[in-house]
Amino acid sequence: MSTFYHPHTIITMNIVFTTRLPHEGFSRLDSHKLIMPLTDTFTHSQLCEHMSDADILVATYDYAVPMQILQSAHKLRMIAAFGAGFNNIPIEWCRQHGVIVTNTPTVVVEPTAEQCFALMHAVVHRTAELDRRLRMADSDGIRFGVMHNLGRSLYGMTLGIIGMGKIGQAVARRAVAAGMTIIYHNRHQLDADIEKRYHARYVSFDELLRTSDMVSLNLPYTPEVHHLIDTAELHTMKSNAFLINTARGAHVNEKALAQALLKGEIAGAGLDVFENEPQITPELLQCPNVVLSPHIGTGTWEGRLATCRSVEENIFALLCGNHNLPNRVV
Amino acid sequence: MSTFYHPHTIITMNIVFTTRLPHEGFSRLDSHKLIMPLTDTFTHSQLCEHMSDADILVATYDYAVPMQILQSAHKLRMIAAFGAGFNNIPIEWCRQHGVIVTNTPTVVVEPTAEQCFALMHAVVHRTAELDRRLRMADSDGIRFGVMHNLGRSLYGMTLGIIGMGKIGQAVARRAVAAGMTIIYHNRHQLDADIEKRYHARYVSFDELLRTSDMVSLNLPYTPEVHHLIDTAELHTMKSNAFLINTARGAHVNEKALAQALLKGEIAGAGLDVFENEPQITPELLQCPNVVLSPHIGTGTWEGRLATCRSVEENIFALLCGNHNLPNRVV
Repeated sequence: MSTFYHPHTIITMNIVFTTRLPHEGFSRLDSHKLIMPLTDTFTHSQLCEHMSDADILVATYDYAVPMQILQSAHKLRMIAAFGAGFNNIPIEWCRQHGVIVTNTPTVVVEPTAEQCFALMHAVVHRTAELDRRLRMADSDGIRFGVMHNLGRSLYGMTLGIIGMGKIGQAVARRAVAAGMTIIYHNRHQLDADIEKRYHARYVSFDELLRTSDMVSLNLPYTPEVHHLIDTAELHTMKSNAFLINTARGAHVNEKALAQALLKGEIAGAGLDVFENEPQITPELLQCPNVVLSPHIGTGTWEGRLATCRSVEENIFALLCGNHNLPNRVV
Repeated sequence: MSTFYHPHTIITMNIVFTTRLPHEGFSRLDSHKLIMPLTDTFTHSQLCEHMSDADILVATYDYAVPMQILQSAHKLRMIAAFGAGFNNIPIEWCRQHGVIVTNTPTVVVEPTAEQCFALMHAVVHRTAELDRRLRMADSDGIRFGVMHNLGRSLYGMTLGIIGMGKIGQAVARRAVAAGMTIIYHNRHQLDADIEKRYHARYVSFDELLRTSDMVSLNLPYTPEVHHLIDTAELHTMKSNAFLINTARGAHVNEKALAQALLKGEIAGAGLDVFENEPQITPELLQCPNVVLSPHIGTGTWEGRLATCRSVEENIFALLCGNHNLPNRVV
């Protein structure tokens, strides 16, 4: 890796952003040229135009970067992914062309775990449904009353976490305090001291589905886990169990999920991610026992600013010639 | 107190319920006569009819028991409150007439803390608002996108708990795991070891209002705390702070709250209780930054069944001639 930044030679880098992000998150890079769309995102052709001069590309998690766009990027040294996942980036191409890829795995942890918990609470306490019905002009027959509008208690439930990485563990930490029993499935069993911290028990995928009252998906997307939750898995789950997905939409066969919910094969779901965002399987919009959110797992002001800072740190490290780039994935 | 229950003399008691509750919660009382409305609640005149023969009255938290109804209740030995609060029961009359009053303070703790947490998450992550907008046919311009629909992180916020009893502490336990800093105000400062458990700092009411990002009401209702949160207190709160009320509606001047929300004097609110239930100040129904629920703080199936069991235990203890009744308040 060459050194870009010497005390006596300040070189201005062209840093291209797929998506408009707050400049205040990149104040340490103000001697460089930040090229952002005026609103939202660049079209592919706009992005293509900028790539021939780009030294660095900042790609947000929701922007699929096509390989073709990168072919004109002769100066490109780095793609800094804004987010933990990088399945939107042509990783193999980057590897072959010596383009570094970094991500921001740490800053997404707490906001995503929080959104996971928000959906978990909302689905069992019927938060969105009851708020919606209270606001309806004709009030839809909603009544206050001791035996009306009852939800379920998380307290005492068994939570099955699929993917016990940083986010899964941040969910587990909250779940312990919420009085839940934790089981998990993961590529590898965790060290005993981590398991002990969350009183968490490693189980097979099948046992997790069969015994959890609440199943939470907290694993990264790879083609091997495409439709990890499909008709058979939904059928294996308990009929009074809930599913939460704050990871990636393609983990779940969304049509199969909608069917399972409509048939009462599971009790409810909280979904922050969808197979074909921003499209949502229409049947899900009709289910009262589903809570939907528009992929805002990391979408808090604090989370976004922290992610900008993390991208900035990754870029800054490259510019300073740091040979051990933080958060390097390629 | 006389003993009702001898090995050789099983006396059938008339146990009158203000409100229909699941019989399965009272299976230990099946040798007694349980008098319940067929649906929902007795009218005052129906209840009055039953009171002349009533040995025990089970009164749910939402049923105001008028003193007049009790005047014909010559056999009445006990009012078993279903819930933690008992401001719906004429306590002084009971004291004067030697009628025992019990409540169910323990079983409500976890469900209420959970609902408090559900509203806290929902209001900062905009859970109800975004779910509602995603379901609208015309979709109201909702867009997926990195800088769209942003919420706020609980992680890192200062939570001010007003009323640090059992429920307040159950909220605090969850908040520690959620990465919040805890301050509290209470009639009395807690023991140092309890404070330490939650890293909680005792502050004045004024300091709590001035410095909290999230204010949660977790104190019982008494006339002294009527409109504890009024125009001045809302004005003292930070403009980016949130208010959660899962205690009693009359703690808050609801009209003043609606004004503060409409003017942006505070950032949002989560409300499970209202001043004039089931009426809700209409302006609140128009606020997108408010999450509303129909007094379901203790309203989970698990919570309701546990409350039935707690009422049953209180009654059973009386019938067994236990001189140290659990949960006796008068």
